Amino acid sequence: MKASIITIGDEILIGQIVDTNSVYLAKELDLLGFEVSEIITISDKKESIEKAMSFQIGQVDLVIMTGGLGPTKDDVTKKVFCDFFEDHLVVDEQVLAHVTILIEDYFKRPISEVNKQQALVPSTSTVLFNTVGTAPGMLMQKGNTTFVSFPGVPFEMKTIFSEQLVPYIKDHFKGIFNIHKTIITYGIGESLLAEYLEDWENNLPSDIKLAYLPSPGKVRLRLSSRGFNQDFLSQSIEMQIDRMPESVKEHIRAYEDIDFPEIITKELQIRNKTISFAESCTGGRLAVMFNAKPGSSAYFKGGMVCYATESKVNILGVNQDTINKYTVVSEEVAMEMAEQARLKFNSDYAIATTGNAGPSKGDSDVEVGTVCIGIATPTGVFTKKYELGQPREKVINSAIAKGLELIYNEILKK
Amino acid sequence: MKASIITIGDEILIGQIVDTNSVYLAKELDLLGFEVSEIITISDKKESIEKAMSFQIGQVDLVIMTGGLGPTKDDVTKKVFCDFFEDHLVVDEQVLAHVTILIEDYFKRPISEVNKQQALVPSTSTVLFNTVGTAPGMLMQKGNTTFVSFPGVPFEMKTIFSEQLVPYIKDHFKGIFNIHKTIITYGIGESLLAEYLEDWENNLPSDIKLAYLPSPGKVRLRLSSRGFNQDFLSQSIEMQIDRMPESVKEHIRAYEDIDFPEIITKELQIRNKTISFAESCTGGRLAVMFNAKPGSSAYFKGGMVCYATESKVNILGVNQDTINKYTVVSEEVAMEMAEQARLKFNSDYAIATTGNAGPSKGDSDVEVGTVCIGIATPTGVFTKKYELGQPREKVINSAIAKGLELIYNEILKK
Repeated sequence: MKASIITIGDEILIGQIVDTNSVYLAKELDLLGFEVSEIITISDKKESIEKAMSFQIGQVDLVIMTGGLGPTKDDVTKKVFCDFFEDHLVVDEQVLAHVTILIEDYFKRPISEVNKQQALVPSTSTVLFNTVGTAPGMLMQKGNTTFVSFPGVPFEMKTIFSEQLVPYIKDHFKGIFNIHKTIITYGIGESLLAEYLEDWENNLPSDIKLAYLPSPGKVRLRLSSRGFNQDFLSQSIEMQIDRMPESVKEHIRAYEDIDFPEIITKELQIRNKTISFAESCTGGRLAVMFNAKPGSSAYFKGGMVCYATESKVNILGVNQDTINKYTVVSEEVAMEMAEQARLKFNSDYAIATTGNAGPSKGDSDVEVGTVCIGIATPTGVFTKKYELGQPREKVINSAIAKGLELIYNEILKK
Repeated sequence: MKASIITIGDEILIGQIVDTNSVYLAKELDLLGFEVSEIITISDKKESIEKAMSFQIGQVDLVIMTGGLGPTKDDVTKKVFCDFFEDHLVVDEQVLAHVTILIEDYFKRPISEVNKQQALVPSTSTVLFNTVGTAPGMLMQKGNTTFVSFPGVPFEMKTIFSEQLVPYIKDHFKGIFNIHKTIITYGIGESLLAEYLEDWENNLPSDIKLAYLPSPGKVRLRLSSRGFNQDFLSQSIEMQIDRMPESVKEHIRAYEDIDFPEIITKELQIRNKTISFAESCTGGRLAVMFNAKPGSSAYFKGGMVCYATESKVNILGVNQDTINKYTVVSEEVAMEMAEQARLKFNSDYAIATTGNAGPSKGDSDVEVGTVCIGIATPTGVFTKKYELGQPREKVINSAIAKGLELIYNEILKK
C-alpha cells in the first residue's frame, strides 16, 4: 500500500507559503497504513500536473493531489483531469444546489457564473462532497492507481479527507499497519548518542528502523516498523526499547512525541503545581507554549511581557535600584523578575528572561546574545547567565530551551 | 535557469516534521532568478535518492538536496553521491581540523570515529565549508546539471547556502530575474474579487501572471513576471496595478507581502505611537506577533497574559466588582482590561481579549466561542462581542483577527 502526495501551487515553489497540507496528509496516510513514497510540489501549469500524474501510475496505489481547484482563473486541475482520464465536465446537481445555498446565505447575493463552475466535475468521477466550501473533491482511477483531487484550502481539504475519503479508503484498501514509537532525549548530542547506541542498533531486528531527529538541545529517536499484526509490531518495538543501554535511558525525558512544555506540563499536573512567566527577550513565547492546550488554566497562571524597562518596575515590581546598579540585563534583575512573577501570579514556579537577542545592542550595554534566566520555586530563587551568540531567532529559542531545562529539573526535585 | 529541490527524510513522509528548509530554499532560489520547477521529498533509501537525482539530469540546471548528511547511521547521501558520480570518499583535511576543534571545544572530549566520518567527502567534489556545524556541503556536476548537498539542520543549511553557494551561483549562473508583487486585500472574498477583476485580468499582458492566495478574512494577489530587464519588469507590473478597478483598490491594505501586525506596526511607526496588550483567551499571541522583529521596543510596550481571573484583578487592576457583576467574559471587563493595559504599560493603544475558546466552558458561564475585545485609544475605550464558534484554534485566530481590525481602524483615524 503505497501513496504519494502532489501539491499544486506556484506560491510554494517561490517560497511564499508553507505547505502544511502535505504534513497533514502524510501523517493521516501513515496512520491509515500507507507508505508515503514521495511528496511532490509542482507548478499549476497543465504540463507539470500531467507529467507528475503520469509518473505515479503503477508506482503507487493512491495519489492525493491538493490545490488547483477553486473559483479563480489560475485553477487548472479539473481540466487536466478531463484530458488525463479522457473525460468531459458535467454539472453535478447536488454540488450546484449546495454552492447556491452557501453563496446566497453567506454573501447575501445571487450565485455568479464563476461560482457555478464549481459544480462542474468530470462525468465519470466520484464526487467527494465538500460540506464546508464550494469546491468538491474528485476521485478517479487509471490502471491500479486511484487519483484524488482536493481543494487547497486547508480546513476544506481536511474536512473532505476525513468525511469522504477515509471511509472510502477503509472500504477499498486492506489492513497494513505502520507503527512508530518516538523517544525524546535531552542533554546529549546526536554523535555521542549514536556511539552509545551502536551495539544496540546493530542488534536491532531488520524490520525495525531507527532514525535520529536532532534539534537544539534535544534528539528524538524514532523506531518504526510495518506489518499486518499491530500488537506484535508494538510489542517488538517495546522490547527493543527495554534493551537500550542505561547511558541512553538516563537522558530520556519522554516515551512519546511531545515537546518540552508538554513534558513539563505533565510533571506539574502530577504534582498539582502551577507556573507563571516574566518575559523580556522571549516576548511571550513561553506563555503561549503553556496555554496552547485546553484546560491549561489548571497549571498556567499567566505571564508578563515586560518589554519596556519601565514595565519591569511599574507593573512587575522589580526594584529600580537593582536595574540602576546592575543594568536591566543582569542576573540580579532576572531573579527579581522571577520572584515577583511567582508572587504576583500566585504560582508555585516562575521563569524570567531578560537579555539582548540582537542584532544590535538595546537598553543594556551587555553583549548581543547575552541572556539571564531567573528561576523561582517554592524553596528559593536562582539565576543563570548565558552567551547565546546570534542570530536573534537562535538566541530566543535557546533562551527558551535553557529556561525549560532549569525549571524541569527543579520541578522533578519535589 | 531552472532548479529543483530534493528533501531527504522519512520524518517528513510520515508527517512528523514540517519541511521548512524547502520554503527557505525556494524563496532564495527565486530571488536569485531561478524558476523552481519541483520540490520533492523522498525517503532516505539509497534507491529513492538515486532515482530522484536521475530524473533531474537535463531537466534543470541546479538541484539542491538537503538531509541525509550527519553523524548517524541513517545518513546515506554521501554514499549515493559516490555511486552516482562514480567517485570514492577521501578525508578533507580542512574539514577534519574544523570538526576536531568544534567537538573538543564544545563537548570537552576527544573526537570520535563517528565524528571523523564527517570529514569524508567524494574526491572530486567541491566542498562547501560549514562554519557552524560538522557536516560540510558538497557540490558536484553531471552533464549540465549541478548537484548540491546540504545537511538538514536548518541553520547549518542556511549558513552554508548564503556563505558558500550564493557566491558560487553568482559566478556561474547568469542574470534572469523573477519579479513578484503581492497586494493584500481584506474584507472581500476570492470569488467576488475575481468578478471585479475579470476585465482587468483578461487585459493583462501575457508575460504577467496573476495568482489568488485566499486565507480567512484576506486574499493575497500576486503578480509575477520573469525576464532579463529587472526595471522594465517592475514598471510593467506597477502599471497594471495602477489600472486595477477602484472596487478592488478600496480593499487593498498593503502593496507588499506583509501580515496584519506588520501593517499595523508601520502605521504606529509613522505616527510615533505605541501599543500594549492584555490577553486572556489569546494567551500572549498578540504580544509575540508584535515583538517578532528587532527594534520592536520602539512601538511595543509589553503585554499581560492574565489567564487566571485573580491576575486580572491583582496585577492588571480590573475591578473585582465588575467581574462579579458581569462575569469575567464580558464587554465591561474587556474595556477595563484594555484601559488598564494602556495606563499600566503607558502606551497609546491597547487591545484586550477575554473569552471562552473552548472546547468546554471555563471560568465563565458564556457560550463556548464567545469573545469580548476591548480597545483603548488616546481618546477613549470601547468593546465588541463576538460569537466565534469552534474549534478552539479558530476562535483564538479569529479573536486575534478581529482585535487587529478594530485597532487598525482606530490608528488610521489619527
